[in-house]
Amino acid sequence: MAGHCPAAPFAGPVVLDQLTILAPGLLGASVAMAARQSGSARRIVVWARRPEVRVQLESLPWCDAVCPTPEEAARGAALVVICAPVENIPTLAAQIRPHLSASAIVTDVGSVKGELCRRIQSDYPAGGPVFIGSHPMAGSEKTGHEAGSATLFKGRACFVTPFDETPPATVETLVRFWHALGCEITTMHPDRHDEIVAHVSHLPHLAAACLCSLLATKNPDWRNLAGPGLRDTTRVASGDPRLWRGILNANRDEVLRALRTYQDELQALHAALANRNDLELLAILERSKTWRDKLRPIP
Amino acid sequence: MAGHCPAAPFAGPVVLDQLTILAPGLLGASVAMAARQSGSARRIVVWARRPEVRVQLESLPWCDAVCPTPEEAARGAALVVICAPVENIPTLAAQIRPHLSASAIVTDVGSVKGELCRRIQSDYPAGGPVFIGSHPMAGSEKTGHEAGSATLFKGRACFVTPFDETPPATVETLVRFWHALGCEITTMHPDRHDEIVAHVSHLPHLAAACLCSLLATKNPDWRNLAGPGLRDTTRVASGDPRLWRGILNANRDEVLRALRTYQDELQALHAALANRNDLELLAILERSKTWRDKLRPIP
Repeated sequence: MAGHCPAAPFAGPVVLDQLTILAPGLLGASVAMAARQSGSARRIVVWARRPEVRVQLESLPWCDAVCPTPEEAARGAALVVICAPVENIPTLAAQIRPHLSASAIVTDVGSVKGELCRRIQSDYPAGGPVFIGSHPMAGSEKTGHEAGSATLFKGRACFVTPFDETPPATVETLVRFWHALGCEITTMHPDRHDEIVAHVSHLPHLAAACLCSLLATKNPDWRNLAGPGLRDTTRVASGDPRLWRGILNANRDEVLRALRTYQDELQALHAALANRNDLELLAILERSKTWRDKLRPIP
Repeated sequence: MAGHCPAAPFAGPVVLDQLTILAPGLLGASVAMAARQSGSARRIVVWARRPEVRVQLESLPWCDAVCPTPEEAARGAALVVICAPVENIPTLAAQIRPHLSASAIVTDVGSVKGELCRRIQSDYPAGGPVFIGSHPMAGSEKTGHEAGSATLFKGRACFVTPFDETPPATVETLVRFWHALGCEITTMHPDRHDEIVAHVSHLPHLAAACLCSLLATKNPDWRNLAGPGLRDTTRVASGDPRLWRGILNANRDEVLRALRTYQDELQALHAALANRNDLELLAILERSKTWRDKLRPIP
């Protein structure tokens, strides 16, 4: 194995003096648990919106301190991870900004990046704390910190989305942090992220949701007649509707574009089947199988 | 527990003197293995189209005799299960008919029933051996007898599709057979089966296939950026394209109807998102989650 470049100040594993998690649900709790397990943070501080959740968090082993406000939780943090729903992220980022040390890095785990990162960037002028978007592909139809797991990120893809002007050393630190949690990181522009995720995550969600909303108009007994195929195909449709509405609204243009090409693809298949165009029907099914067979397995 | 009705000749577990499996792939091998394990057949006879498969089958514990022709395999059978692709089932059923004993029952495991059952019925006049369609919802994207399992049918839905004129005692025997293999059986008219399965199995396949064929036009690197959601949503798209072409063609009218309503559903969602109709968007996502949350778990 190659050694670390002696001139690189951020080489080697990241050990943060303080990691702050704002609004820990499934993802935030998993970040904290994985950071604890990998020794990536000496101290983990959290803030949750609801007092009853804060009481629960106090007794958890991955939680060193629970603060009543995001500002207090952010104070002294080397890295803040905002785990709130996408529509609340910019406000939280702006709210904690004056309380951060100049060397702090702030990130999030939201499913949408372009607009969101641009909006936050305008509150984080150069020379002070830095915001860089993150998106670990490790959501679930489950929610809440109780569903968290130290191994949630193992082998999972994670986007890190700096702008051209983001200081490289801060990107490096953030990448090393996610790497220590088990992620396979890809850095790219926030807008590029949104195009890709519209196709590999938001569109599949809509495809599954529409299957279910169609079946919801049929005899409820049909539910007992399905095989495992329908279960798998529709699993993601159990996701939180309000969370997903926020994601879809925040990535509206890219999602609409992806959805339209999906509708075109379905129409092509409809036409092939209706016109008894067996060659075209087989070509679609074969192209689809070839692509799926090469999809990367997830641990 | 209730006892058996003393007047019912078919009460109690079915033990067949001879079970014949034609063209055992994943499903046929699993039928044989489950029948052996449940003691449902004293003797299991098989026929496979390819001689190299017949040689392999000879050494398997769930196989008492391997015949070089379907006619020979069918001779003496109490129950014949035809496991060939849907387009080959009617020909095989007609081919073995003259070689069956008058009390024999013939069934299949094909994913389409209406046209197929009607076509076979015309070759099985009343008073001789009886054909009744079956469809255990236990397919997989895997194929071949090597993928078979004695527990494949455990807790799985299974359609049994007699016509009004089918002798009730033969339906009873077939239902008891699938029950012994672990299935949860629903009897219904073949045409009703086709409508339901178009929605709960064939449509999900097309939804997944079109997702994959769309993604196949994008940068191959996107495959490495997907989370488990895309994997689950598209799993069925790995199914055998030729097998699926046969299924879709055999159930064309019902599949086209289901596909059209799915396209309408996607268009409604597209409109809600494009028009910033937040109430409608949330309503679709909520209807979909409510339906999915109540979907029956499969062991």
